[in-house]
Amino acid sequence: MKFGKAVIAQGGGPTAVINHSLAGAISALIRHGEIDALYGAIHGVEGVANEQFIDLTSISPELLQRVAATTGSALGSTRDKPDESYCARMFEVLKAQDVRKFFYIGGNDSADTCRIIAKQAESTGYELQVTHIPKTVDNDLLVNDHTPGYGSAAKFVAHAFAGADMDNRSLPGIYLGVVMGRDAGFLTAASALGCCNHQDSPLLVYIPEYSFDTERFLSQVESTYRRFGRCMIAVSEGIRAEDGDPVLAKLHPNLDRDPHGNYQLSGNGHLADSLGALIKTHLAVKVRADTFGYIQRSFAGAISSIDANEARLVAEAAVNFSFGKEYRSGSAAIVRTGDYVVEYQLTSLESVARSTKSLGADFYDPITAKMTQSFFNYARPLIDELPHCTILTGNPVPQILRKRSQ
Amino acid sequence: MKFGKAVIAQGGGPTAVINHSLAGAISALIRHGEIDALYGAIHGVEGVANEQFIDLTSISPELLQRVAATTGSALGSTRDKPDESYCARMFEVLKAQDVRKFFYIGGNDSADTCRIIAKQAESTGYELQVTHIPKTVDNDLLVNDHTPGYGSAAKFVAHAFAGADMDNRSLPGIYLGVVMGRDAGFLTAASALGCCNHQDSPLLVYIPEYSFDTERFLSQVESTYRRFGRCMIAVSEGIRAEDGDPVLAKLHPNLDRDPHGNYQLSGNGHLADSLGALIKTHLAVKVRADTFGYIQRSFAGAISSIDANEARLVAEAAVNFSFGKEYRSGSAAIVRTGDYVVEYQLTSLESVARSTKSLGADFYDPITAKMTQSFFNYARPLIDELPHCTILTGNPVPQILRKRSQ
Repeated sequence: MKFGKAVIAQGGGPTAVINHSLAGAISALIRHGEIDALYGAIHGVEGVANEQFIDLTSISPELLQRVAATTGSALGSTRDKPDESYCARMFEVLKAQDVRKFFYIGGNDSADTCRIIAKQAESTGYELQVTHIPKTVDNDLLVNDHTPGYGSAAKFVAHAFAGADMDNRSLPGIYLGVVMGRDAGFLTAASALGCCNHQDSPLLVYIPEYSFDTERFLSQVESTYRRFGRCMIAVSEGIRAEDGDPVLAKLHPNLDRDPHGNYQLSGNGHLADSLGALIKTHLAVKVRADTFGYIQRSFAGAISSIDANEARLVAEAAVNFSFGKEYRSGSAAIVRTGDYVVEYQLTSLESVARSTKSLGADFYDPITAKMTQSFFNYARPLIDELPHCTILTGNPVPQILRKRSQ
Repeated sequence: MKFGKAVIAQGGGPTAVINHSLAGAISALIRHGEIDALYGAIHGVEGVANEQFIDLTSISPELLQRVAATTGSALGSTRDKPDESYCARMFEVLKAQDVRKFFYIGGNDSADTCRIIAKQAESTGYELQVTHIPKTVDNDLLVNDHTPGYGSAAKFVAHAFAGADMDNRSLPGIYLGVVMGRDAGFLTAASALGCCNHQDSPLLVYIPEYSFDTERFLSQVESTYRRFGRCMIAVSEGIRAEDGDPVLAKLHPNLDRDPHGNYQLSGNGHLADSLGALIKTHLAVKVRADTFGYIQRSFAGAISSIDANEARLVAEAAVNFSFGKEYRSGSAAIVRTGDYVVEYQLTSLESVARSTKSLGADFYDPITAKMTQSFFNYARPLIDELPHCTILTGNPVPQILRKRSQ
C-alpha cells in the first residue's frame, strides 16, 4: 500500500464538536508525516466527485485550534450518498490526485458511504484506504458506547429543560418540548438530566423506541398535572404510532420527504403544536409547546469539554489505525471500559454502517414514561457541567387574617 | 414612616438572572437591619392577596447564593394585575402582617402593578413603600438603558444564531428563527451578534417596530439567497402587518388570547411554519424554520455574568433608595454613563409603567433588514462572551481532471 495523499471530509448533520474531530485527524496526519499532502474535500463526497479540495498540508496549528472551537462542519457537509457511478467519478478524481487515504467524519449514513467506497475501490482494484470517524448527535451508532456530538447536544437539551423546568415552576402549567431523534431516544432522554430530582419530577419522556399511544399519553399528562400542579413533557420528533409510522406523518399526511424518502421531521413545529392542542382539548389548560429544532445540534454555547476532547481523540485514533500494517478500511469506535474510562477501538465499516442502535431497555420505563437511574449513570459522565438548581425554601409565615376569620 | 416588615415578590415572565435580583435585594435588606422581618410572597401579588409568604429573615448566605445561580423565579411568579378590590385584599393582608415595604421584581406590567398599589395605598392612607426592581428579556423598559434578563437571553439568541449560521454554512439553504418580542425587537436583534461579519452576513432581521411587508420580505430573502447561496432570517414573534395587527394573528385568526386580551404569540410554531411555507412556495427551496420558544428566556447555560451582576446591583440599589428620607415609591433604573459604565438611578413608577421602549431607529436599517454597527456597540458590552467563529480557509487544490478534459 502506498500512502500518497490523504483526503478528509465531513458528512451528514453538523454538530458542535465535529471540527474537533477534523482538527484531531489533521494534526495526527501531519504528525505522522508519511503522506505526500493533505486535502480537505468541500462538502463531503460532493467535493471529491467534483474535485473541489483545499490544501491543508501546511495549515497552522493556531488556525486549526480556532476552527476546532467553531461549531458546524468547517469543510462543509452533504447528504449525498454515492452509488456505483458516483463512486466511479470519485475514483477518477482520487486517482488523478494520487489520493490513497480517505477519512470521512459522519454518522451511520457516512459509514455506509465509506463501506460502499471501500467495496467499489476493492472491486475496481484502486488502492484506497477508507476510514470512518464517528459523529452524530443521535448517539445511535452501533459498537460505540456513545458518539461525538451527543454529549454537547445532550448538554444543550439538559440546560434547556432545566431552564424550562424552573420557568414552569415559576408559572405552573404544561410544557412540552420536542427534541431531535428520528430512530433513537438518546437526545430526548437528556431532558431528564436537566430536571431537579429527575425520577420524582413532573417530567414525562416519549421516545421512538416505544410506540406512542395517544390515550396513554393524555392520561399520564393528566395524572402528572393533578399530582404536581404542572407537567413537563419531552418528546422525540421520531415517536411512532403502533404501525411504526412517525406520529408526525400521521398528523400531517403532506409532510415533506428527503431524497432518500425519509420524512422531514425537523424544521417545523407541527408535532409540538399538534400534541399541545390535544392536551389543551383534553385538560382545558394552557400548554406551552416548544420545538428545539436545529439549534440543539450546533448551539455554540453548550459544548461539553468531555465531548470535544473525545471527538479529537477518536479522530486521532482513526488516523493511527490507518497507518497499521495491511490496513484497508475501518471505523474508530468509542468503547467504555470503566466509570468513567473509554478506549478507542478499530471496528469494521460493516459493523457501524446502515443499522442504528436503540436506547437500551434498562434506560427507560415505558410504564411511567421516565428515564431510569441506569440512563443517568450512563449519560452523566458525557456532560462536563449540568445546570445548577436550588429550590428556595423557607418557613411558611403564619397566616393572621385567615386565623382571625376562622 | 415606620419600617415594619418587608415583602419581596417576583412578577411576569421568569428570566435566567431574576434570582440574582432576588438575592441582591434580600441581602441588602438584611444588611440594612432596620426591618422587623423579611417575607417572600409566593407567586407575586397572588401570594400577597392570599397571605402566602415564606420567612426569609434568617436565610443563609449560602442558600441565597445557590438560589441566585438557579434560573426562573424562585418565589414563583404570576400574571395577575391587581385592580382596586384586589389591592384592598392585599392591604388587609399587609396591614395584618405589619408590612411597610414592598419590593416587586418585574417588567413594565409589574411596574404598573406597583404604581396601582402605591396609588391605592396613598388614597386609603395605608403607609406602604412600593419599590419596583426592573427585569425583562424584552429590554423594553423606559428610562433604563437595558434591563436585567436581556443580556442573558441575548447571549442565548446570539449563540443559537452562531450555531445555526455555521450549520447553515455546512449545509447551505434557508434558515429562519422566530425569537421572542411582542413589541420590541431587541432580543431578535441579538441574532446579529452571533453571525460572523454581521453586516456582510446572509442574515436578515425583522422586528415589530417596522411593519412587515410580505412581498418585500420574499424579495429580500430571494436576493440574499442568490448572493450568498444561503440565507439566515431572524423574525420577532411580534412582527406586525401594515395595520398594526400581529402577522401571526392574521395567519391564524383563531390564535389564543390571554386574560388581558393579548394574543398568545409564544408557545407555538405557527409563525415560523407559515413564513417557511411562504418562502418554500416562492423559491422552491427547503427551509429550516425554528421557533426558539420559552427556552430562550431561562436557558440555564447561557447566563451573561455582566447581566447577572447588574441584576444583583440594581436590586441592591433599589433597596438602598427605599431607605432614603421621605421615600414613598419608585423604580431603580440602569443608566449607561460610559463605555461601558452604568449607574443605578431612582426613577418614578409612572415613568416605567405601562409604556414600553422601542428599538432605536439608529440600531436598524429597514431598507436592508440589517442591524447597524450602533446596535452592535450598544449590545456587545451586555454579553460577557460571544460565540467563537473561525472560517477554515486553504488554497484550492489545482484541478487535474478538469484541466485534462478541457
